[in-house]
Amino acid sequence: MRLYVLGGGQLALMMCWESQRIPVHFSVYDPDPSAPAYRCAKRPSDPLEEVDKADAVTFEFENVDISLAERAEKLGKLRPPLAYLKVKKSRIEERALMDSIGVPTVPWRRAANWEEAIKIAESMGRAYVKVPTGGYDGKGQYIYPHEAALIRGLAGELLVEEYVDIRREFSIVAARAENGDVYFYPPAENFYVHGILVWNYAPTKVPEEVYEHVHRILEWGKYVGVIAVEFFEARDGRVLVNEIAPRVHNTGHWTLETDASQFENHVRAVLGLPLRRPRAMAPTAMVNILGVGLGRLPLAELERLGRVYWYYKAEARPRRKMGHLNITAGSVEEAAARAREALRLIYGADFPKLVMRSRPSP
Amino acid sequence: MRLYVLGGGQLALMMCWESQRIPVHFSVYDPDPSAPAYRCAKRPSDPLEEVDKADAVTFEFENVDISLAERAEKLGKLRPPLAYLKVKKSRIEERALMDSIGVPTVPWRRAANWEEAIKIAESMGRAYVKVPTGGYDGKGQYIYPHEAALIRGLAGELLVEEYVDIRREFSIVAARAENGDVYFYPPAENFYVHGILVWNYAPTKVPEEVYEHVHRILEWGKYVGVIAVEFFEARDGRVLVNEIAPRVHNTGHWTLETDASQFENHVRAVLGLPLRRPRAMAPTAMVNILGVGLGRLPLAELERLGRVYWYYKAEARPRRKMGHLNITAGSVEEAAARAREALRLIYGADFPKLVMRSRPSP
Ligand SMILES: Nc1ncnc2c1ncn2[C@@H]1O[C@H](COP(=O)(O)OP(=O)(O)OP(=O)(O)O)[C@@H](O)[C@H]1O
Ligand SMILES: Nc1ncnc2c1ncn2[C@@H]1O[C@H](COP(=O)(O)OP(=O)(O)OP(=O)(O)O)[C@@H](O)[C@H]1O
Repeated sequence: MRLYVLGGGQLALMMCWESQRIPVHFSVYDPDPSAPAYRCAKRPSDPLEEVDKADAVTFEFENVDISLAERAEKLGKLRPPLAYLKVKKSRIEERALMDSIGVPTVPWRRAANWEEAIKIAESMGRAYVKVPTGGYDGKGQYIYPHEAALIRGLAGELLVEEYVDIRREFSIVAARAENGDVYFYPPAENFYVHGILVWNYAPTKVPEEVYEHVHRILEWGKYVGVIAVEFFEARDGRVLVNEIAPRVHNTGHWTLETDASQFENHVRAVLGLPLRRPRAMAPTAMVNILGVGLGRLPLAELERLGRVYWYYKAEARPRRKMGHLNITAGSVEEAAARAREALRLIYGADFPKLVMRSRPSP
Repeated sequence: MRLYVLGGGQLALMMCWESQRIPVHFSVYDPDPSAPAYRCAKRPSDPLEEVDKADAVTFEFENVDISLAERAEKLGKLRPPLAYLKVKKSRIEERALMDSIGVPTVPWRRAANWEEAIKIAESMGRAYVKVPTGGYDGKGQYIYPHEAALIRGLAGELLVEEYVDIRREFSIVAARAENGDVYFYPPAENFYVHGILVWNYAPTKVPEEVYEHVHRILEWGKYVGVIAVEFFEARDGRVLVNEIAPRVHNTGHWTLETDASQFENHVRAVLGLPLRRPRAMAPTAMVNILGVGLGRLPLAELERLGRVYWYYKAEARPRRKMGHLNITAGSVEEAAARAREALRLIYGADFPKLVMRSRPSP
């Protein structure tokens, strides 16, 4: 079996780790020769030719080289299908898709330019103005009126959406096989600081209807592989899809502690193997290690709390995802308590306060 | 952290896999350049010098190059201690140790030569005659009177022991840290054919006293790392230690499905990190893939039942351990049922009958 992954970051690295126990020829496309996944995966001599050789082609982030993805799609090898990649090219198209398949999302409007965006935002009172393309980890999004100065002068079309008064954020990581079999991992509650995921834990209770929403998203384009769907639960009770990630996802890293991780099930689905349903599972918290290099990392202390996964990135830039810590425990309360301890160890005394504005509600 | 493992077989390979998520410099000594562990581990340019560079030195089988182990012991780096390796040099010394620390073992006697061995065996009625050194996987042991012809002419001292009428065989895999902390994995029931482990499952119930026996073995030489202790439960109710393995062990492979495998805990203990207690755990069966190469392996079917771990050995010789399959399930009965299915898939229709003489008794 020959698998080709577009993108060589930590997500591809963890896919490779989770595949090495069986003979999968695992190659990665990444222009950066120091990409994390090359610790484990092979580097094809010809990136385009590798598409022809592979049994299956997948991707680990949305901004992949589209010509490779298109060629793979044409050969019937791209999983998940190209349609999901295309919809992720624009936050506007993503919101429009949710509307068209009847999945509740954040109320939104399209603005032709920044002047119109400010007018719409004003009419909403408080709003988010988002650049439709290229954003991630909270980049390219601005709060109105707070950041009105940054919105002024933005180029091109913009997405304007309601500023949701959020009670909590959670996500569903699901896997779909080619035969239509679907598995939902237990939902995770996620904690963001300035648009970036800092920690999460699973399981958490969510309204039954969300599974129906995920189902619709999966069936829309006959999804194959692992997907993540991120939700807002508003204080007024509404449950809204914030965004979808047609790939393995940071909020699913905790599944590495089960006997069938998101990485393994993604590879299985993509290669046409049947999904696995985890049996060995415990309440688990995940803590992202952001911007902290090995030199400053209290590794031994963290290993007392759980298991560190290090991504072996060349350089520790601020907010960069350098690794994560998974903590299994007897209860989510215990897992969350140890996650707080880990945050203090990693970031020092001040950081937890920032993060703890919202609290686990198991 | 720099870890040096003497022996580069599948046990070292799995230790390496379980260590790669954190920056452990993992090197292996094995004269065979195609040894499985080199897929993951580094090969030192100078085997002896590597002992000096390492923070800790351990081994994955008992017949290691003793000069390397002795040097590591002298530098205070060998874990577990040399005493356990030495006692494993001879089945006679191993039985004598059990007697001396009050751990019940198979009743035995020392014979100066084969003639005396046959005399002692005769007096016992039915007996096992074992060559004291160099045996594994059932090699070097003969049943009297059935194999009397093979005993005649054996060189040197021999171990003669009672032929135990076995009800079942089980093992305890345990980990001990330098600070004396001990963790016992749930016991496994093991099924052997002609002296070689074919499959097992965990957990199984065992008499409380066995933990005390394992404790004594661990405290005798201040053990550090993972150990396996194999027991016979005789039909008359006696529980007897058959043998100890001062290393990670085939009967502990099922722990790869937990969030703290024997391989991980061995590495942790040896490097002075605290032990982990698994939280994510389900009833699990393990099936050895013996003598079957990749070409003949029904990989896709096995992956429907569980997870295959392939050791990437150059050549499939009869009885050679080529890989194994771990099966997690909702109950041990379900795990055992799927293990039987796997045995049929791997070995064909006849094999299960041989193996199924003893049945799981959860
Ligand atoms: N309309 C909104 N109302 C309130 N909060 C929001 C809104 N949109 C975004 N946020 C906040 O910003 C966070 C990041 O938003 P979003 O997931 O859209 O960013 P992103 O840059 O696409 O991040 P990702 O890396 O997850 O793709 C959200 O988790 C939420 O906390
Ligand atoms: N005294 C005995 N009475 C009955 N059965 C025995 C006896 N000794 C060994 N056996 C059978 O042979 C099997 C293998 O024995 P043993 O574990 O001593 O062999 P080994 O060659 O040292 O194997 P290993 O690879 O586990 O080190 C046992 O599991 C048991 O089934």
